[in-house]
Amino acid sequence: MTRSTLNTFRLYATGKKTVPLTVEKYPGFQRDDKYKKLTSTDVDYFRSIVGDTGLIYQNEDDLEAFNTDWMNKFRGQSQLVLKPKTTQQVSDILKYCNEQKIAVVPQGGNTGLVGGSVPLFDEVVVSLQGMNQIRSFDDVSGILTADAGCVLESLDNWLGEKGFMMPLDLGAKGSCHIGGNLATNAGGLRLVRYGSLHGTVLGIEAVLPDGTILDSMSTLRKDNTGYDLKQLFIGSEGTIGIITGISILTPRRPSAIHVALLGVDSFEDVQKAFKQSRIQLSEILSAFEYYDNNAFQIFKKHNDARSIMDNEYPFYVLIETSGSNKDHDEEKLNTYLEDMMTDGIAQDGVVAQDESQSKRIWGVREGLTEALGKEPAVYKYDISMPVSKINDCVLEMRDHLEQGGAFGKPDSPVIDVVGYGHVGDGNLHLNIPAKSADPRVLELIEPFLFEWVSKQKGSISAEHGLGISKNQYLSYSKSESMIKLMKTFKSVLDPNGILNPYKYLPTK
Amino acid sequence: MTRSTLNTFRLYATGKKTVPLTVEKYPGFQRDDKYKKLTSTDVDYFRSIVGDTGLIYQNEDDLEAFNTDWMNKFRGQSQLVLKPKTTQQVSDILKYCNEQKIAVVPQGGNTGLVGGSVPLFDEVVVSLQGMNQIRSFDDVSGILTADAGCVLESLDNWLGEKGFMMPLDLGAKGSCHIGGNLATNAGGLRLVRYGSLHGTVLGIEAVLPDGTILDSMSTLRKDNTGYDLKQLFIGSEGTIGIITGISILTPRRPSAIHVALLGVDSFEDVQKAFKQSRIQLSEILSAFEYYDNNAFQIFKKHNDARSIMDNEYPFYVLIETSGSNKDHDEEKLNTYLEDMMTDGIAQDGVVAQDESQSKRIWGVREGLTEALGKEPAVYKYDISMPVSKINDCVLEMRDHLEQGGAFGKPDSPVIDVVGYGHVGDGNLHLNIPAKSADPRVLELIEPFLFEWVSKQKGSISAEHGLGISKNQYLSYSKSESMIKLMKTFKSVLDPNGILNPYKYLPTK
Repeated sequence: MTRSTLNTFRLYATGKKTVPLTVEKYPGFQRDDKYKKLTSTDVDYFRSIVGDTGLIYQNEDDLEAFNTDWMNKFRGQSQLVLKPKTTQQVSDILKYCNEQKIAVVPQGGNTGLVGGSVPLFDEVVVSLQGMNQIRSFDDVSGILTADAGCVLESLDNWLGEKGFMMPLDLGAKGSCHIGGNLATNAGGLRLVRYGSLHGTVLGIEAVLPDGTILDSMSTLRKDNTGYDLKQLFIGSEGTIGIITGISILTPRRPSAIHVALLGVDSFEDVQKAFKQSRIQLSEILSAFEYYDNNAFQIFKKHNDARSIMDNEYPFYVLIETSGSNKDHDEEKLNTYLEDMMTDGIAQDGVVAQDESQSKRIWGVREGLTEALGKEPAVYKYDISMPVSKINDCVLEMRDHLEQGGAFGKPDSPVIDVVGYGHVGDGNLHLNIPAKSADPRVLELIEPFLFEWVSKQKGSISAEHGLGISKNQYLSYSKSESMIKLMKTFKSVLDPNGILNPYKYLPTK
Repeated sequence: MTRSTLNTFRLYATGKKTVPLTVEKYPGFQRDDKYKKLTSTDVDYFRSIVGDTGLIYQNEDDLEAFNTDWMNKFRGQSQLVLKPKTTQQVSDILKYCNEQKIAVVPQGGNTGLVGGSVPLFDEVVVSLQGMNQIRSFDDVSGILTADAGCVLESLDNWLGEKGFMMPLDLGAKGSCHIGGNLATNAGGLRLVRYGSLHGTVLGIEAVLPDGTILDSMSTLRKDNTGYDLKQLFIGSEGTIGIITGISILTPRRPSAIHVALLGVDSFEDVQKAFKQSRIQLSEILSAFEYYDNNAFQIFKKHNDARSIMDNEYPFYVLIETSGSNKDHDEEKLNTYLEDMMTDGIAQDGVVAQDESQSKRIWGVREGLTEALGKEPAVYKYDISMPVSKINDCVLEMRDHLEQGGAFGKPDSPVIDVVGYGHVGDGNLHLNIPAKSADPRVLELIEPFLFEWVSKQKGSISAEHGLGISKNQYLSYSKSESMIKLMKTFKSVLDPNGILNPYKYLPTK
């Protein structure tokens, strides 16, 4: 999603339709009485920290964008948004909230998919959008330090002028904050090449619930002095501290990028193509994505696009290479594609000849989410598992829904079960478009799917996190002893439980 | 260090020289009375877990190798070594030790440099050498799972037959265990290319002090379900749990490797060469190492090697590329070298034409440690800092020692101050060979050096960890709030403090 689509969604939310409150949609949540209700004294105190322009109070129109997520799936009831400008202000805010037991929701670009960044009840929203300065950049090592509220795409553009790039890329880059990326351990499209944030993030500055500023803003690639505490904050979804600054290792921007599309007959061949790409494309492979023909049909239904290939195939593979030498990369990619065709692994192959062709190929893969969003209803899952199991998951879900009477006949509620995702990461986006949001269908899907994923030792949330929509299912991905230890850490770091309550860890 | 040199060191320790006890060398440590002294009942209980062949008790000859480190710098007084064969045995051992308050030192290949893997007093050694089985390998994703006691080189050889490799490499590979690599967050030679273990390790199985088996043996590249607890164990030096199993992402083994050596006039030019290598060699760069001419002179003193270059230069740069296409890599490397010479950044350049020439070039870089070890005494430091400061550190230490009257005259105690290391990682190995171990010299070096590193926001231990030799200096690298939080985690995870006591965190 680009910035413009995000804005469209926002306008939609405020203009045309009232999003139901999360607590109405997910019944069973009760406001915890241990949290203080805001008083005018509290608001005055916060005003003394951030100033008149640093807060939004009881103005429903202005609060809307902070109370509602971009998909219009979640809506909270916060009366106060704070926009600190400095780490010290964040510290002062949290110290007071902790003393007064005021619940807080940290918020970055608010582009999450699991409701983690919006409140449920009257939690105070602490938005990082006022902290958006680049702090330093070392063009020898490629190490960037920046405020947590910097927008990912802005950082990437800024680095681009210096010949570097951010090591992560995702659809929401035009709106998401780097601090939010860290807090949710964002993966995205470049993970197969540049690895996860646990490897690329070198330092974090975070404010703990009691106001302690934890300065771990290392700009060192190697530092073996004590527990690597910053790692706990990566993927903690704002539950143990507010990330205010980041230090990250950025790679050189590649001078040559190539994109190709393969038509493939079976998922076994998709795997063979992936395996061989790691040998022949090796160091220049920067994306290996797949989508099935069912997903492509949904795309075609909502898009007027010319076909990229003459024929249709059960599976499509999108390959991207990024390297420092155009001729070398072209030679590697062409040899690889020839081998795939000769060996019968690919039935067809197309290499983009220019940027507009690259965009067309990427356009289908990236447009799947939007096309699926145009169906009357869609059940979306972001799961990971051993690569070999990806298509089994799609097939077994189809069987299961058919046996359950929800799929396969003209009057069935389910339209289709489609799969696409990041093959290299074992990450499947399983989507089930349906004629309407139907609790009976949901009961067929869950917990069947989570149990299936659990049996494969997969993850029920590969990239999207837990938030409010996955936290009760954590036991399908993590053992009892792991969850117990997580709860211990949460209570040690946030004894009053003021940070992002009701979410992340199971409450039941 | 290869396995054979390690054995030599071991023989030296047992045969010719009695290593002084650590507690004699580092006075001020006292055995903590809270730990129980072993009784025959305890030993019988342990025997019931691991069997007769799974323990060594009160046999000084057999205990020696577990009580002494390979450098003969540290010696403990343990009377009991346990060699469990299963994770359940490790759990049973720790549960009992925790209940009885028996102190434990986990031990892998015992190749550490800071005394972290040997006991101080009568702690029980739990050696992982009996747990050395590969558990699984997925040749599509490249994900390996294995017991913690597997030797790094054995894993790498095993993977080599399948076209894969371990993402880390270090001198001690012939002896060190993968579990110990994780426990010490080993960096090594390939970090510039494959990143740190925080990125490549996907899962850990660890036993907590109370015997809880923490099963986080994920084989997923993406999993955003809760705090990433495994990260805390990476670099924890055996203080919060014993790692018994690992899951790691392994890259394809490159089919082409090239090695080159540059002669360079200034450290500014070393940085320029590094910067340009990231542009031109980019995705194939797998090592960028430097050593200064002073280090090279020490090497020459102890080695009968033919010179690789005709002339000598103030600095030498070793570049290694690893890729999937020999011709492409050669072209990139040759173009880069020509540009370096044309631009006057390098004064001379040599590319190895075969494996024996590669070995000769690597031989100097890797032989520096051994050569320095042949000096009468040597003060060794492993520090990291912004790349631009690396040579300043060497120069300022020379000045400081000269002003302190310890260097620069024929009768000065210090022979030289030399630098070498991993430029790409900002990692300097600062070595100060001297005519004898002289407390006056040590007092000049420390804490001056740590203060200097601290001012550059560097790390006092880039790769080697803290153990017993660096833990009291932690505050030079980490803030008070960070150390406080580390101590909190330690006390939460190991409330009785049975794991690796007296080490890692400051005791004073």
